[in-house]
Amino acid sequence: MITSTSNQQMKDLAALLKKSKERKVNKAFVVEGTKMVAEAPKNWLRKVYVSEGYEKNPENQTLLKAFSKDASTYGFAMETVSDSVFKSVSDTQTPQGIMAVVAMPEYSMEQLVQGDKTHLLILESIQDPGNLGTMLRTGEGAGITGVIMNKTTVDLFNPKTIRSTMGSIYRMPFYVTEDLSGTLEDLKAQGVALYAAHLKGENSYDEEDYTKACGFLIGNEGNGLSEKIANQADTYIKIPMEGQVESLNAAISATLLMYEANRQRRRQ
Amino acid sequence: MITSTSNQQMKDLAALLKKSKERKVNKAFVVEGTKMVAEAPKNWLRKVYVSEGYEKNPENQTLLKAFSKDASTYGFAMETVSDSVFKSVSDTQTPQGIMAVVAMPEYSMEQLVQGDKTHLLILESIQDPGNLGTMLRTGEGAGITGVIMNKTTVDLFNPKTIRSTMGSIYRMPFYVTEDLSGTLEDLKAQGVALYAAHLKGENSYDEEDYTKACGFLIGNEGNGLSEKIANQADTYIKIPMEGQVESLNAAISATLLMYEANRQRRRQ
Repeated sequence: MITSTSNQQMKDLAALLKKSKERKVNKAFVVEGTKMVAEAPKNWLRKVYVSEGYEKNPENQTLLKAFSKDASTYGFAMETVSDSVFKSVSDTQTPQGIMAVVAMPEYSMEQLVQGDKTHLLILESIQDPGNLGTMLRTGEGAGITGVIMNKTTVDLFNPKTIRSTMGSIYRMPFYVTEDLSGTLEDLKAQGVALYAAHLKGENSYDEEDYTKACGFLIGNEGNGLSEKIANQADTYIKIPMEGQVESLNAAISATLLMYEANRQRRRQ
Repeated sequence: MITSTSNQQMKDLAALLKKSKERKVNKAFVVEGTKMVAEAPKNWLRKVYVSEGYEKNPENQTLLKAFSKDASTYGFAMETVSDSVFKSVSDTQTPQGIMAVVAMPEYSMEQLVQGDKTHLLILESIQDPGNLGTMLRTGEGAGITGVIMNKTTVDLFNPKTIRSTMGSIYRMPFYVTEDLSGTLEDLKAQGVALYAAHLKGENSYDEEDYTKACGFLIGNEGNGLSEKIANQADTYIKIPMEGQVESLNAAISATLLMYEANRQRRRQ
């Protein structure tokens, strides 16, 4: 059992939780809680840490037995950690007592672009981890084929983002581009129609046809899309707003656009 | 100038920021930042606090002059606070240097129910302040006539909720009910059709008619609606979800329902 925070494994775990760079170098991230650990694809698991209390709890025995079996099948390690060390490393205030180090998935653009079915969410410099996670979760619900992010979007593997994906992190193909502008040109060349919610939009978002390959551009929470990126959209659309509302939250706008495409595609 | 955190005004301000009970007793809440203070209805303002730095900044002179004028017209006080005391009282990490104590608005149910136009968001035990604020902001955008909350919903005047309303807190009529079940019966008696997103829903949310008086029931983030409240809905609807998504975030579900009603009403 690990009983000290200065144990090398605990140091590595803490670094993976806190530092985006550590996650990138190790191509791994950390998930917490029974549901998130149990949902992880088994062959992505590198290590499962359980607290002493979690291990002793009779309610967890079936799950722990299954993990032990998986551990030998898939070749990942399981470690017990004292309750106090577990709590001090955990990113949550009341840790459930189970954490896992998971291999970071990688996708190619080809996996996100699927001919006429292509339905992309394209993010420029989203800063709020909860917003990003919610967009992945909602995007999966709306049936999008992937999420594209520029490099200044908050790290997808931030613990807060992971929590708010509610498991979509394991299933949603994504691509982080070094050159968003170039990526948009590539998409357009492949026939993906790009839409941006914009003050200059003439048609309401529900007056365009999203039944063919399309992508929705969503900008930073405070500043919206940069002019350069907004200029690359094929069509500006508007989201009607009553009262004195000037804009909607980025995840809310993304929801309306992705689900409008879903609605149209369901009715085809 | 106030230079100590033990100044009674600062103690009162801190209590209003931190404690829901203090806000209720005093029928007042605190808003922070230039935009939120400037947007407050003038006759709701009780006190405006500015930091020394804010007061000295040449960029703020026009605004401060206008506030001084309003202060004498509407009879509210303005006080200068040393930068360090301001920072220690503020709820934000990098305070802008302006805060105001604002009178809490009160609405009657009659203001929320407006015949055929009635379009309500009805919340049971929402716990996340950011979610609640986002629902008010989105609700204003979607043109709802009010928000009804049960008593175990998080306090609307929590600083985090207020921030995420982006000003809708000043404009959205709301009603906190001691007896949600009784309120729902009253609404039904007045001809308001109640819809709940529910696993038992047969029709998709975009297959019902929301052009007459309607209300959408949204439940707690973790547990959804209680059985008692869900049973009072006239119609269960479903939000289609692809992939392995089991549910959407409460604010996201509310958005889809409120904006579907908005879409239908725009097209009438």
